[in-house]
Parts: sequence; C-alpha cells; structure tokens
Amino acid sequence: MGEGFALRWCQKLDIIVGSRDAQKAKEAAANYTTAAKQAYGSGMAGSISGEDNFAVANNVDVLILSIPYEFIADTCAKMSGHIRNDCIVVSPIVPMSRTDAGFIYIPLEQGKKPAADMVAEALPPRARVVSAFHTISEVKLKNVGQSLDADTFICGDDPNSVSVLTALVGEINGLRPVYLGPLALSYQAEILTPMLLNAAKRNKMKNPGVKLT
Amino acid sequence: MGEGFALRWCQKLDIIVGSRDAQKAKEAAANYTTAAKQAYGSGMAGSISGEDNFAVANNVDVLILSIPYEFIADTCAKMSGHIRNDCIVVSPIVPMSRTDAGFIYIPLEQGKKPAADMVAEALPPRARVVSAFHTISEVKLKNVGQSLDADTFICGDDPNSVSVLTALVGEINGLRPVYLGPLALSYQAEILTPMLLNAAKRNKMKNPGVKLT
Repeated sequence: MGEGFALRWCQKLDIIVGSRDAQKAKEAAANYTTAAKQAYGSGMAGSISGEDNFAVANNVDVLILSIPYEFIADTCAKMSGHIRNDCIVVSPIVPMSRTDAGFIYIPLEQGKKPAADMVAEALPPRARVVSAFHTISEVKLKNVGQSLDADTFICGDDPNSVSVLTALVGEINGLRPVYLGPLALSYQAEILTPMLLNAAKRNKMKNPGVKLT
Repeated sequence: MGEGFALRWCQKLDIIVGSRDAQKAKEAAANYTTAAKQAYGSGMAGSISGEDNFAVANNVDVLILSIPYEFIADTCAKMSGHIRNDCIVVSPIVPMSRTDAGFIYIPLEQGKKPAADMVAEALPPRARVVSAFHTISEVKLKNVGQSLDADTFICGDDPNSVSVLTALVGEINGLRPVYLGPLALSYQAEILTPMLLNAAKRNKMKNPGVKLT
C-alpha cells in the first residue's frame, strides 16, 4: 500500500518511503515519483524520497507502519531507539489468516492481541498510536484518478494524533475518516478486512470498500 | 425489530409474531396489521398474527430469534422440543455491551462464544442456523416507505438455508444480501453492530447501515 499512499499524498506532502535496504527504498521512490509526475505534472507540490527504516523513523512526523502482524515486535524493537518522540505511529496492520472457512481474524480465533495494541506496546507512548486504513483497496489507492468512495475507520487515544490522521485521510479523494473511539476498539476496524475479503470472494466483488450509509 | 420485519414481509408472506405471552403477541400483531394496511391497502397479500413462542416454533418455516444474547441458552432449551425439524433458525443476535471506551463485542473482549454458535448448540442441527440482520436500523426497517440502502451479511453452513434467507432479504426494499461464509465466521457480521454504534455516536450519524462499495 505504500505506493498508493505516496502517490496520493505527494501532491501536497513530502513522503519518505522506507525499507530495510536504503537502495531499494530509493529505487521505489524514483519509480513512484515518475508515476506521480505523470499524474500531476506541475501540480505536485510535495516529493517522494527513499531512506532506510531508521532514517525514516528519525525524520517523519507521521509513520505509516505497513508491516505484517508477525513482524510487529521485532521491527518495532529495532526502530524504537530511532523514532522521534513526537512522531505519530499509524497501524494499518490486520492480524488475519486463511482457513477452509475463509479469512479469519487471528485475535478472536487464537486469543492474540489486536495489531494496534501490539504496536502501542512496542512503540510507546500509546497516545501517539493511531489505527487506520485497514479496508482500503490497494488497487484503488494506487489509481490516483479514482475516488475511493469509501470510509476508513480511525481509533486512537489522543485527540491531537487522531486529528492529524483525520486530516491526512481527508487528503485522499473520496476517503471519509470515521472515528470509532480509543485504540482499545481497534479490533472493530481491523476485523473489517477479513470480512471484506470473505464478502469479495463469495460474491465476486472487485476490490470492495466499506461505507456507512 | 420484530415490528419492522412483520411490516416488510407481510406484503407477500404470513408472519407470526411470538412472545412468551400469547395475548401480548396477538395485540402486537393487531397493531402491526393496522399499520401494514395503512401502508399497503389492498396490496397486502400476506398476514400478521400472534402466538406464544412455542406455537410459533411449531408453525413457522423460518424463525427469527430476536432475543438478548444472555437468554439464548434458556430460551432455546425451552423451545427445542417444540421447533419443527425443517425450521430454519435465524440469529440476528449481537453479544455486546457498553464500557467507557464505547460499545464492545463480548466474544472478543470476554472470550465468550459468538451468538450464532450459541444458537447452533442450543437448537441443533447446526446446518439450519443462519446468521443475518445484525446491522439493520430498526427505525429504517419500520419505515416501510424507505429503502434501506444497506447490506446485510449472512453466514450459514447449509446452502439451502442460506438461499431461503437470501430470498427473504431480497424482499426488503434496498437491503442487499452479502454471503460471508460458514456460521463459524458469524463473529465478523455480529461485530459490525458495536462498530456501527460507535461510529454513529462519535460522528453524529443517524441510524447508519453498512454497505460495501
């Protein structure tokens, strides 16, 4: 999803793409910049660059933590010494797996913690952690000409962190921020992803999003 | 929600309203019939009558089990001897409560079973149990002139039971049936209710529904 976020936000904001390998991050950033310039031309006021994860953590106001659930503890432990104190950390992470029944939500079926709680424990303080972007279609997000026509559900404990995120969501065409409550409710947003994937598969829907009507 | 279902379905179907007290059920049925006749006039091909819960269980093809989560075991134990073998049992039940954080889903936070599993254990065989109607606005459902403009998510193990339910959902104007998978996934539909209530409360939405876009 990183590519989609970079393409959507670079119109106004400076984006740094992170990777364990700085060279890979720089190459990705160059590719995204080419795509963004094609889409926006001279209307692109921001930028896209690439750095290794530690440099990203040290430089950004908002960190979108797009990593698998299984890697949260390990990745966050490595980054915790590098991340700025005032950095807002965003978890779009969804703990899910696939069984014969369909896509399942791991915390409910296996008694493990929701992703947002794992992140908050690994990168304290909890107040700066915000949960969002769980049900965004990667395909639609990358297609910058397309309105998402969807909601994204936000959980977080700190009003300031939540309002920064709300503004960032508002920058994405057709994406509506819907605040659910404190981070402890993040499971209600995370679980929408396996639900959505089950619905899409069983009903042959293509890249659906969730919207409250 | 019983009133809304009766009003929506009586246009074509015979509805029996159930209650522990037959007299209460008959009075409710009479009131609903008056409202239905006002709405449909001579276009009402079905009927609404009232019986005690045992008579309902013995007479219906499809039983909508609109009871609180806490009463599932007790109510079902009393009805199990009366219910027809070929009756399809529908659970719109949502195990939730309210805390300082907001509305929470009890099975995830307290390690209890999803409502559909409780019903399936109390009223076997599991194949006849279908989970649906968790996120329907009662207010919109009762207002028969209004399209619901929403999805309802269906879980069930038996294709025949699911297809009967799918057809019943299709009878309600603007309500789209979305099959999620086997009954074991019902928690993904049930949890939408506390999510929706949190979203409505925090964002001042009035009777929202969920829709996949």
